[in-house]
Amino acid sequence: MKVEIITTGAELLLGSIINTHQQWLSSKLTRLGFEVTRHTTVSDKAEEIKNAVSEAITRTDIIITTGGLGPTSDDRTREAIAELVGKKLIFDTKAAEHIREYFTSRKREQPKSTNIQAYVPEGATILYNQFGTAPGLIIEVDRTENTGKRTVLLIMLPGPPRELRPMFENQVIPELKKRFVNENYSCKILRTTGIGESKVEEIISEHLKPLENEGLIIGYCARPGEVDVRLEARGEKSAEVVSKAEYIVRQLVGDYIFGEDDDTLEQVIVRILTNKKKMLAVAESCTGGLVANRITNVPGASVVFWGGIVSYANEAKMKVLGVSKQSLQNFGAVSEQVAKEMAEGLKKLSGTDYTIAITGIAGPTGGSPEKPVGTVFIAVSTTEKTIVRKNFNPYDRETFKHVTSQQALEILRREIIHET
Amino acid sequence: MKVEIITTGAELLLGSIINTHQQWLSSKLTRLGFEVTRHTTVSDKAEEIKNAVSEAITRTDIIITTGGLGPTSDDRTREAIAELVGKKLIFDTKAAEHIREYFTSRKREQPKSTNIQAYVPEGATILYNQFGTAPGLIIEVDRTENTGKRTVLLIMLPGPPRELRPMFENQVIPELKKRFVNENYSCKILRTTGIGESKVEEIISEHLKPLENEGLIIGYCARPGEVDVRLEARGEKSAEVVSKAEYIVRQLVGDYIFGEDDDTLEQVIVRILTNKKKMLAVAESCTGGLVANRITNVPGASVVFWGGIVSYANEAKMKVLGVSKQSLQNFGAVSEQVAKEMAEGLKKLSGTDYTIAITGIAGPTGGSPEKPVGTVFIAVSTTEKTIVRKNFNPYDRETFKHVTSQQALEILRREIIHET
Repeated sequence: MKVEIITTGAELLLGSIINTHQQWLSSKLTRLGFEVTRHTTVSDKAEEIKNAVSEAITRTDIIITTGGLGPTSDDRTREAIAELVGKKLIFDTKAAEHIREYFTSRKREQPKSTNIQAYVPEGATILYNQFGTAPGLIIEVDRTENTGKRTVLLIMLPGPPRELRPMFENQVIPELKKRFVNENYSCKILRTTGIGESKVEEIISEHLKPLENEGLIIGYCARPGEVDVRLEARGEKSAEVVSKAEYIVRQLVGDYIFGEDDDTLEQVIVRILTNKKKMLAVAESCTGGLVANRITNVPGASVVFWGGIVSYANEAKMKVLGVSKQSLQNFGAVSEQVAKEMAEGLKKLSGTDYTIAITGIAGPTGGSPEKPVGTVFIAVSTTEKTIVRKNFNPYDRETFKHVTSQQALEILRREIIHET
Repeated sequence: MKVEIITTGAELLLGSIINTHQQWLSSKLTRLGFEVTRHTTVSDKAEEIKNAVSEAITRTDIIITTGGLGPTSDDRTREAIAELVGKKLIFDTKAAEHIREYFTSRKREQPKSTNIQAYVPEGATILYNQFGTAPGLIIEVDRTENTGKRTVLLIMLPGPPRELRPMFENQVIPELKKRFVNENYSCKILRTTGIGESKVEEIISEHLKPLENEGLIIGYCARPGEVDVRLEARGEKSAEVVSKAEYIVRQLVGDYIFGEDDDTLEQVIVRILTNKKKMLAVAESCTGGLVANRITNVPGASVVFWGGIVSYANEAKMKVLGVSKQSLQNFGAVSEQVAKEMAEGLKKLSGTDYTIAITGIAGPTGGSPEKPVGTVFIAVSTTEKTIVRKNFNPYDRETFKHVTSQQALEILRREIIHET
């Protein structure tokens, strides 16, 4: 089944905000076996929305629109689409009640304008909004084309992510599953770090050839600091084919696989530490708090995370972490010795089971011939030892920080899982 | 002039990566006075690219495509578009030389496949790639339509952001300015924080009415923790109209304006501190390093940033920042008293001119009836005093962290600029 996503809104075309709906919805749909074939963004004018939908309707099986379902004069999607497909808007008492309840449960007065959201296209399936007032809508459009009759599913979702995402997960996915049960599809994404895209491919592709004859489709996606291996199959044996492929990939490059599907490296670290009942602290110079920030993005991190020291100035390295002045003078702040002292000093300070320490040159300035911009030392200290790695990440400042934080978390992950 | 942006690539439709080109290009184009009317994303198949371009060509003045200019079999944009508009691909010796140089200057052997990138559509303007091998291309397409003759500009840019962005800034923008000199357009974005969208509008809209009669267009864009006020005008008097409007807005809500156009709050803070030759340190509990991370994203931050303490565990608050056990017991970690002690303790430790301290409940768990999830205390300590604000940010975990970091930086900014 083909899907097109149509996002609407002036802020998107002005470049005021990043379009996250496209990626989020596409990722969810792809995992379910749908093929997303096009993303379109148009303004919130009724004419533009109608044009975009009427083009898509000729090409695709499912159309998802986002935005334009609110109560203001900018919100044109409901009317525009109803008009386009020739459906009347009728007042739905249950939808109206749901909107009223939204306000009463929050002890707020209901603005009169919100009532307009209870007018829905005839025959629509209504998706009640747990986190806002605009209901989502699903309508079926029957078409007679040269090639025969077919039905296009039109799914309208509200714009705010906190409304759209739970509505999609809790109400749209079950609807899609109900309607397209015959689709036999399996997909598994194995997430690797510390190995390049072409290297992964070189190692695994030969061994997966036989499964490709059984319908396996392999995809790779490289982002800074990580490479996804996507294993897909359709048909009755899809689950078996994907599971066989996963086994082979894990045998060949298992060490590099930190998680699957939606896993992030920081989630995996928090999960492992929680299971092992261990604590972590981090000392960061050039990554400037990014590692701590990533870890504390994970709900429940407080159980395993003591905290972090962002020792940007040398004085902070000495005063808080106890790095020796001599080491800073003799080896420089960006050195194996200082990384080691940072990790071990933090160990002493925090008393945690593990510490990470990072010192390097993020750039754009500050490099030298022996230590060019991108040079970084990463130390990981466990109960048994401290290891230090020297890496070279010659990227722009933010990519440097991201890739370095990724490498540090990965060194820690491997140390922990290989401990006895 | 209307612009459509067509991004290509399987990873975008699979939802593996976020589409940042659309936002980045739209923001740049809008500032120059172009109207971006549609974003389209299709796969990298030649047929799909041709469809998307041939649709856009009937509607718009300028088309920008991204991706598909590389040397591999996935890179179809150049051929697809040349075929669509009926231009031959011819070998360009200068482009070939440029590609060769790219490799020799990096002391790498040139893969034979890269030569294909020197084949360019007849009559194209070639944009040499400083950070990769694929040249960008601009071609003019003359069309005869019912309404008369017109020319559509087709701009093809490479996919990787580190190649696309400098090429657009250094080569495309001058070309656009050269071709569309008659456009008289002014735009200024004033970036505010600490005030809601409707409140800003309420305060300023009445006073800007007279300028609207002179052609001023006002726009608002709200994101978590900030609201942009966009002032635009066209025509001979555009610069004057926008400058008058800016004066009025600054008079009315100047305290909330932290910057303009592309400014971020962290850039502004680093700039102010650099000018004043002052140093900052931060102590973060619930924001978990985000403030430090934002500040260290700014090149040159090391001059003004001592470092940060991510005192997630209470023990870290006591051991490193000297928060008293009594205060933690009597008032709890999330309290005015503890925020104050964190800020002042860090002041003592670091000896910096300013410190920020943040303690709160990010959620999703950890709240109580008196201190629900979203409660946060922000302390800012200057050479003269320590102030503490209690805020309530009942959002999801990452939005909470972002909004709280924004509030903390803004409290600091106001303290500094109001100092004598």
